[in-house]
Amino acid sequence: MAQRYVRVQNQEGQIYYGLLQLSLNVQVLDAPPWLQGQPTDLILEPEEYQILAPCAPSKIVAVGKNYADHAAEMGTPVPSEPLLFLKPPTSIIASETEIKYPVLSQRVDYEGELALIIGDRTSECTPEEAQTKIWGYTIANDVTARDLQKKDGQWTRAKGFDTFCPLGPWIVRELNPGARLQTFLNDNVNPVQSSCIDQMVFAPDFLVSYISQVMTLMPGDVVLTGTPEGVGALQLGDRVRVEIEGIGRLENIVVSR
Amino acid sequence: MAQRYVRVQNQEGQIYYGLLQLSLNVQVLDAPPWLQGQPTDLILEPEEYQILAPCAPSKIVAVGKNYADHAAEMGTPVPSEPLLFLKPPTSIIASETEIKYPVLSQRVDYEGELALIIGDRTSECTPEEAQTKIWGYTIANDVTARDLQKKDGQWTRAKGFDTFCPLGPWIVRELNPGARLQTFLNDNVNPVQSSCIDQMVFAPDFLVSYISQVMTLMPGDVVLTGTPEGVGALQLGDRVRVEIEGIGRLENIVVSR
Repeated sequence: MAQRYVRVQNQEGQIYYGLLQLSLNVQVLDAPPWLQGQPTDLILEPEEYQILAPCAPSKIVAVGKNYADHAAEMGTPVPSEPLLFLKPPTSIIASETEIKYPVLSQRVDYEGELALIIGDRTSECTPEEAQTKIWGYTIANDVTARDLQKKDGQWTRAKGFDTFCPLGPWIVRELNPGARLQTFLNDNVNPVQSSCIDQMVFAPDFLVSYISQVMTLMPGDVVLTGTPEGVGALQLGDRVRVEIEGIGRLENIVVSR
Repeated sequence: MAQRYVRVQNQEGQIYYGLLQLSLNVQVLDAPPWLQGQPTDLILEPEEYQILAPCAPSKIVAVGKNYADHAAEMGTPVPSEPLLFLKPPTSIIASETEIKYPVLSQRVDYEGELALIIGDRTSECTPEEAQTKIWGYTIANDVTARDLQKKDGQWTRAKGFDTFCPLGPWIVRELNPGARLQTFLNDNVNPVQSSCIDQMVFAPDFLVSYISQVMTLMPGDVVLTGTPEGVGALQLGDRVRVEIEGIGRLENIVVSR
């Protein structure tokens, strides 16, 4: 199994980056791994830590309509270049925690996505250089208040609520370019989203290069690469699970705020 | 003169919050002032520091079309509720530094604005509570690639370039509600923007309350309150200066990237 990089909090509230072992012990690193964090002698056993989102980005840059099938289901053409938006860091939550349904919305959707973790300060780079700036991969759910997205024009409110960016559970360094992304609701065995990440309109290296012409990406920053077709509504009490082959599964429950 | 709260960097690259004295010495604080930073014995003389933007926010939440006269000049109605968008932290620069004109745009505009600095973690508060969460005030220039704003739909790229958020030069705790905001280009004595901040459609306390229904604001976060009429283009070599009575002046020069 590929090495899994986690971020955890111990019972005293101290936060560590670490390596998740098969035993589910966490070997603590002395810094974020993309800042050359090295393993220490500190080992946390499963009852001693809580898993957090695997990074704490200075920004989350997301891309809209980056799968042709999803653009079609939204009734919009595929953009001729990536359509960028931002989600605030306060929207991030870990796997196995709660998405809080806002009182301001009557229609909240899941959007399963591949997330890229940036390893280096990245500005004005080519797609070739960009590939070397992608330190790893994790899973995201770009939760969206679809009614507010349509109403507001700007997507900031619709996609910016606290808890609207489940992220994790861990980061892996390598990913099969044809990996399948699937989203499941509750105990249904049939996925509501199922696509391969190679169906993206703009590939990860192109996206990072494109974003870097606008804004400098910092180590630990997150790029969300868009969702495939099959987006749909979440209800209170739903468990939503996004899986990407070779990474794992990100699962969250929907509760009232 | 009101107390001026600054953030500075010394020649070794160390960053401090401090109090700017009339002598232009900086008395260093042991933490950000909104985190109860207290004065220390360390004094920096003018040749020992460089002024930075006065805070390092985890996010910048901005409000579009919040002056009726500006909405009219853009040919759009005043929104019925605040129109939120985000600027990335990497867009922030200090006063007296360079706005870099992107190669991707042929039309870059200044937008002089009042900026609010949040003092406390703020979630789901009323306008009355919100007033107590506004720790202080500074000046911002919400630089915007107008051509990309019109083309992209989402404003993230147009408003998110590195250097597109001049902020500062310092923070004051109190502000006259009728303070005048003016923007000047080069040596022109006539301002290109001149309005009073009480002409906002949604006042600062309402904006903070509104944003806090969506996303938690953190200490040191920045809220940009919108620009009045008179927005216009910047040219390479321009000096653009935004002044707010009772705060000071934020000045930047436009250079090629």
